[in-house]
Amino acid sequence: MKQIPGGVTAAKGFMAAGVEAAIKYQNRKDMALVASTVPCKVAGTFTTNVVKAAPVLWDKNVVETSPFAQAIVVNSGVANACTGKQGMDICEEEAKCAGKLLGIPAEAVLVASTGVIGMQLPMDRITAGIEKLVAAKADTLEAGLEAAKAIMTTDTVHKEIAMEVEIGGKTVTIGGMCKGSGMIHPNMCTMLGFVTTDLAIEKNLLQEALSQIVKDTFNMITVDGDTSTNDSLLVMANGLAGNDMITEKGENYQIFVDALYYICEFLAKKMAADGEGATKLFEAKVVNAKSKEDARTLSRAIVASNLSKAAIYGCDANFGRFLCAMGYSGAQFDQNDVELFFESKEGRLQVFDKGTPIVFDEELAVKIMKADEVTIFVDMHEGSESATAWGCDLTYDYVKINADYRS
Amino acid sequence: MKQIPGGVTAAKGFMAAGVEAAIKYQNRKDMALVASTVPCKVAGTFTTNVVKAAPVLWDKNVVETSPFAQAIVVNSGVANACTGKQGMDICEEEAKCAGKLLGIPAEAVLVASTGVIGMQLPMDRITAGIEKLVAAKADTLEAGLEAAKAIMTTDTVHKEIAMEVEIGGKTVTIGGMCKGSGMIHPNMCTMLGFVTTDLAIEKNLLQEALSQIVKDTFNMITVDGDTSTNDSLLVMANGLAGNDMITEKGENYQIFVDALYYICEFLAKKMAADGEGATKLFEAKVVNAKSKEDARTLSRAIVASNLSKAAIYGCDANFGRFLCAMGYSGAQFDQNDVELFFESKEGRLQVFDKGTPIVFDEELAVKIMKADEVTIFVDMHEGSESATAWGCDLTYDYVKINADYRS
Repeated sequence: MKQIPGGVTAAKGFMAAGVEAAIKYQNRKDMALVASTVPCKVAGTFTTNVVKAAPVLWDKNVVETSPFAQAIVVNSGVANACTGKQGMDICEEEAKCAGKLLGIPAEAVLVASTGVIGMQLPMDRITAGIEKLVAAKADTLEAGLEAAKAIMTTDTVHKEIAMEVEIGGKTVTIGGMCKGSGMIHPNMCTMLGFVTTDLAIEKNLLQEALSQIVKDTFNMITVDGDTSTNDSLLVMANGLAGNDMITEKGENYQIFVDALYYICEFLAKKMAADGEGATKLFEAKVVNAKSKEDARTLSRAIVASNLSKAAIYGCDANFGRFLCAMGYSGAQFDQNDVELFFESKEGRLQVFDKGTPIVFDEELAVKIMKADEVTIFVDMHEGSESATAWGCDLTYDYVKINADYRS
Repeated sequence: MKQIPGGVTAAKGFMAAGVEAAIKYQNRKDMALVASTVPCKVAGTFTTNVVKAAPVLWDKNVVETSPFAQAIVVNSGVANACTGKQGMDICEEEAKCAGKLLGIPAEAVLVASTGVIGMQLPMDRITAGIEKLVAAKADTLEAGLEAAKAIMTTDTVHKEIAMEVEIGGKTVTIGGMCKGSGMIHPNMCTMLGFVTTDLAIEKNLLQEALSQIVKDTFNMITVDGDTSTNDSLLVMANGLAGNDMITEKGENYQIFVDALYYICEFLAKKMAADGEGATKLFEAKVVNAKSKEDARTLSRAIVASNLSKAAIYGCDANFGRFLCAMGYSGAQFDQNDVELFFESKEGRLQVFDKGTPIVFDEELAVKIMKADEVTIFVDMHEGSESATAWGCDLTYDYVKINADYRS
């Protein structure tokens, strides 16, 4: 398994584009297209929010009922959420428009939107945007990069990655991109993410791999505890790598799962580090928990706590806040079993030892916490299960960005 | 039922004091005492956090097993949480010290602490503080005020109230004080709160009244989603009003419950409005929900959302964030039934109508949101149950206060 340059156009047969469509903002790319030259198996995971955006409902239907998918149209600026029947109609029009121009069925077109909730998409500009996207689409790495940039909202960096693995003597490529910075909280996938691969794999196995992997990757990040109405992670596999179709779990399946896991973890961490207003990546590692679910719950509670996040921002080794967050997480444990450490590239420092606070070197603590990636390491001493969650610090800029997002 | 001046010393037979003990900070009152001249029935509700502070464990035991209680000793600055066996020993020493000086059993002394987690209390200064408190105690309204000020941490205002009701021909007084500004989230009571009354009532009825009332008052506020390790709400009833002992639910019980409810709601709203860094009170009213629990869940989710709180701060009528928060709250509903309004003393504005966004007057929206108390009113059209939750806006100052709380 090795990382290679590129993103969604790295795998054979995938094209992309990013264009300016003025959906909400002027002078920035705000629509993207990902398309395959041949039909793809598709898998997806979607928000658990009861208030699902129209594109989520459209895509769930495509993933569950369509024989194949072949393109994804994405816009930023307006989320097409809380938009009633008109919002659903717009998804259908969008898919029909793209399908017609690409020469594929509307049911093979996935749509995704991100931006302001409660506003209708301007269909005329969406149509014009799709025309530009189809004209501009290319299979170059640059085209993939343009798509990754066009899906950004409050993101400060674009997020893409590509990996190469060998499966049954064939080179298989997997590439992905995502966007996400605010309204990010672990509950199914928590953003827009798109992965393309030329692997040949059965649809149910593709879905199983994805559903399993999101639990420890995208579902383990949080920026602000707000699970979006639009979260979608889609994987399209077009089979052009020429490997023997993967039809069962075995060595070949596992090679793909490992690479997909790497990609999902990479993109998830990128999103956490690029949380709105964030200055650093905040990681919580919980080891030796009673169950996997406990480990996940505890580590997520630590990175989700506003007080923990503010302490990370202020480089304040106020470890009681982490223990407090673990305490209200819902997981049962005895504080007299717990050890807690601060970790970064600058060092490692124990601050709590099985029920008792440790008098520690405050200067070293500040030095450790000033790093751009800080880890809270917790040993529960109650079992053998572990989990890692990722978040970011809470800063003035988070408030600034969100106090007037619409203007 | 009428409001009268004062707080915990308003009821007959209650004394209080607030003194400087230099527990953590210099030159501010940081220890308080509330004491009754005669033994009291006592009821309490405590944090649901698994990591319970030592004073919470001590008080739970007193409330559940002690025949009576007669005094409460409180300190701010250090929370005595995550402090192991030493922390428990300190509670016992504290109770013994106060008991000896007051001439009551240690088991009749409740203790409460608020402040930094993971730090041991300085027992010598606690002892000196108790000596000063016992010497200073008085039954004046000023003494109650001093106690209310001494329990503050990041609070910007002290919080007290007193009510008078007539029960069985006797005047009964109920007074309360509380502190709470950060680490506030609805899960049992979420702060330190102390209520005193001269009512004569059986202990089990006192506990039942309190447990019922916190569900719709203290448990319906949130500042930052962090449920503290120390939350405690204690009520002491000394019987000096001379009413016939309340031994069953009936008219007299209901008069007391109504007054206690008023006090708890008043104090809870005061805490929400004084949330760390807050500039305004943020209220969510959910009506016509399928069940009471749904109504509570939905209204709390709205006021707990960081994105909603930032929009309230920025006077941005970004109503999608409120719907989004309702959607991930855990309650099931159909967005096509929902109506959403912004309300304040400046007016009322509908922004969402059963699945469809309404094009609204942005200027009026800003005017409404600029008020110092803003309400999101949601009609679910799914049943007949209602609930109200209170929070505050998320501001730069919240981050500032919490990025370096310990220094």
